[in-house]
Amino acid sequence: MVSQEQRESAFLWMLDLLNEGTVALPLISQGFSPEDWAFVFEGLPQDLRLSLWQTLTDDKKSSILAAMRDDSREQLISLLSNQNIEDVALASSTEHLVEIIDVLPKRLVKGLIKKLNPEDSGLLEDALNYTDDQLGRYVNHEVYSVNKSALVGDALQELQLEDLPPFTDSILVVDDADHYLGQIDINRLFNSPHDLNVMELAEFSDNVLAADMTLLDASESVKSCGRSMLPVLHKGGRLLGRFSIKDAIDVYQEYYEEQLSHMGRVSDEDLFAPVLISAKRRASWLGINLITAFAASFVIGIFEEVVMQVVALAVLMPIVASMGGITGSQTLTLTIRGLATGQLASSNLKALGNKEVRVAFLNGILWALVVSAITSIWFDNPWLSVIIAVALVVNMLIAALSGIFIPVLLDRIGIDPALAGSVILTTITDVVGFFVFLGSASFLLV
Amino acid sequence: MVSQEQRESAFLWMLDLLNEGTVALPLISQGFSPEDWAFVFEGLPQDLRLSLWQTLTDDKKSSILAAMRDDSREQLISLLSNQNIEDVALASSTEHLVEIIDVLPKRLVKGLIKKLNPEDSGLLEDALNYTDDQLGRYVNHEVYSVNKSALVGDALQELQLEDLPPFTDSILVVDDADHYLGQIDINRLFNSPHDLNVMELAEFSDNVLAADMTLLDASESVKSCGRSMLPVLHKGGRLLGRFSIKDAIDVYQEYYEEQLSHMGRVSDEDLFAPVLISAKRRASWLGINLITAFAASFVIGIFEEVVMQVVALAVLMPIVASMGGITGSQTLTLTIRGLATGQLASSNLKALGNKEVRVAFLNGILWALVVSAITSIWFDNPWLSVIIAVALVVNMLIAALSGIFIPVLLDRIGIDPALAGSVILTTITDVVGFFVFLGSASFLLV
Repeated sequence: MVSQEQRESAFLWMLDLLNEGTVALPLISQGFSPEDWAFVFEGLPQDLRLSLWQTLTDDKKSSILAAMRDDSREQLISLLSNQNIEDVALASSTEHLVEIIDVLPKRLVKGLIKKLNPEDSGLLEDALNYTDDQLGRYVNHEVYSVNKSALVGDALQELQLEDLPPFTDSILVVDDADHYLGQIDINRLFNSPHDLNVMELAEFSDNVLAADMTLLDASESVKSCGRSMLPVLHKGGRLLGRFSIKDAIDVYQEYYEEQLSHMGRVSDEDLFAPVLISAKRRASWLGINLITAFAASFVIGIFEEVVMQVVALAVLMPIVASMGGITGSQTLTLTIRGLATGQLASSNLKALGNKEVRVAFLNGILWALVVSAITSIWFDNPWLSVIIAVALVVNMLIAALSGIFIPVLLDRIGIDPALAGSVILTTITDVVGFFVFLGSASFLLV
Repeated sequence: MVSQEQRESAFLWMLDLLNEGTVALPLISQGFSPEDWAFVFEGLPQDLRLSLWQTLTDDKKSSILAAMRDDSREQLISLLSNQNIEDVALASSTEHLVEIIDVLPKRLVKGLIKKLNPEDSGLLEDALNYTDDQLGRYVNHEVYSVNKSALVGDALQELQLEDLPPFTDSILVVDDADHYLGQIDINRLFNSPHDLNVMELAEFSDNVLAADMTLLDASESVKSCGRSMLPVLHKGGRLLGRFSIKDAIDVYQEYYEEQLSHMGRVSDEDLFAPVLISAKRRASWLGINLITAFAASFVIGIFEEVVMQVVALAVLMPIVASMGGITGSQTLTLTIRGLATGQLASSNLKALGNKEVRVAFLNGILWALVVSAITSIWFDNPWLSVIIAVALVVNMLIAALSGIFIPVLLDRIGIDPALAGSVILTTITDVVGFFVFLGSASFLLV
């Protein structure tokens, strides 16, 4: 493995070499981890990916695929022949195969499972019983356990023989049927008399993970437990594997990057996804936005008459909608975060609503004054200044309220507020903004 | 420490108790870690925070403050008396004090440093030599090191005496002047003969962190190194402390939450920050947005004449601006991510631009057809349909180009694209959208 800086400069060099048509890159890629390789592939345009890919060995390939973002993995696999894919899949560990299998052609998967050895195909089928946001699917089976009848000396002897996998800070004690009984800090194990039974040292803590937990909950537990890994148990208490703090980082990064993508109205897509695929995915976000935009147009259409008579309304109306939109998205952002962390609940929702409305009111008054001052200089129409001031305050208040209640309602009916919240919010602030502004104008100006 | 689920239900219970006026909460808060407490405080309205705070002991208080989000910490400290703050500060470790000190009144800090013992005040002054995004500031000094002349037996004896701090998977070897020489896996240490010199086992790896690295770079290194912690070195190679994978998670979370906040046009603020403080901070985001909105209004103002004659233009113009805005923010989101990871560089920028423009062109054509069909039914004016179709395609193309070049340029001049990118982008898509739509209308329709 290499440092971040080395990785980035190696990436730049590699990019230049590949652009020139050089595909053998033994020197700079020495010591590259699968993550380093994944980083390189994700930054390469599609055509260069395939040339670089062909220089790698099959066992390396599967770990690189597993380390990639979901979409990049899918794009790369779509470039490969069925025979290529099968070779990679057969050379890969079960953990890697689980990551890859979702994007393989269905027909290929059936044949593949038959070709695996019984142990691997068992593990794979176990994993596939869980959904792709459940811990059981991605659990790492490489775990150190000893039987409850073992002595400290036996456990130590086994440790001596093998290199410990990273993030192993304790060994797990199990019964004959592989049920988890407790864990022993490695340091404690080393410091204990060799003829002691391991059960004398084992601590049973609540810090275990259930295989049907979500990945995000599991990450939260590992993060707060002060250990490098936690055991993952089947429903009946049987030890399934482990989940490490490094796995938690990956889960968090994926979670946050998806949220950021959704706020930018795009899926978490590969940088160089094929044009048609990208266009299709983004079209759905644009289509939803178009409905919002037409809703706003429809409201303006209702007030055609007054706009025709006072064209300044058309000039100023985007201001009302836009200030409402920003106010709403400020509140929305805080509310979504509070819901995601669990810090926002029915008991403090009212207090938050109270505060957000006050904040919006203060800013509404402030910016209404500024905007109406500019308006009165620009258009010399005192009524227009009054109307835009009122519309701004009203729209910003409704925006703040919507910023709380939209995500809370979405959350209650089980829709991720980060996905749908801001679209609904913009629709409301546009519609309300235009309606109040043009509506009061048609009362007062005509 | 408690699990995430326990924490959330304890939080809800506590909230109810505090709302009823009960402030002694011995039972449910047993086993609460500083992080658990920070979670509780951040979800409480301000008035309840103080009542709960007063039930805690001083040494607990400093670790809770250190575990809080920056803004929540600042809000809580602002509620306390100087005497209170000093008591908490004097009872806290240097690491915690470094986290707190930024938000303490300046005058208090000077007096405080004098009252610390020489070792602590030395560490504190060292830390304050680094900026608040540098590793040196937040380094953990609790690190296991042995002198190069020590034998394995000596090192083991010391380990036996103490409980290892979490995430200690190796001990560090230093010379007489505390310069870092290498590290030994704990497992390897335990498995070696006691009369061996530690230097025989020490591995020197490049996996060390420099105190002047940014926290984000340090986190990237820890994440990819496969270890639970890395040593942090002063410029001259002197061992300063360590940075663990748990610290990396905290850095990532803070980084991503700040990005999410900025995309929602708000600072990463406390859920229950005081109304005036919140209003003031958000006012600056709203003010910047107002400039954008007035720029758009100004463009509409130029074409007052044609809008007055063809009011359908006023009805439809938000559609052009809004579709451009979404297209641009899709590209912007990908570009910002690519810049942040380092996967976007001058050598593949052209390939990305190429792809994004094609994607925008395909979607431009698609939605131009849809919008002009609806327009022709609604307004029965074929020229209007042509104009809006052209304006949509042009605006979406320019949006995609801006989505790449704005963040790249901002990045080159050292401004965080996540902070300023989307404001500049919206200004461009609004101005260009209105200009092309209304401008071509004034040519063709009048």
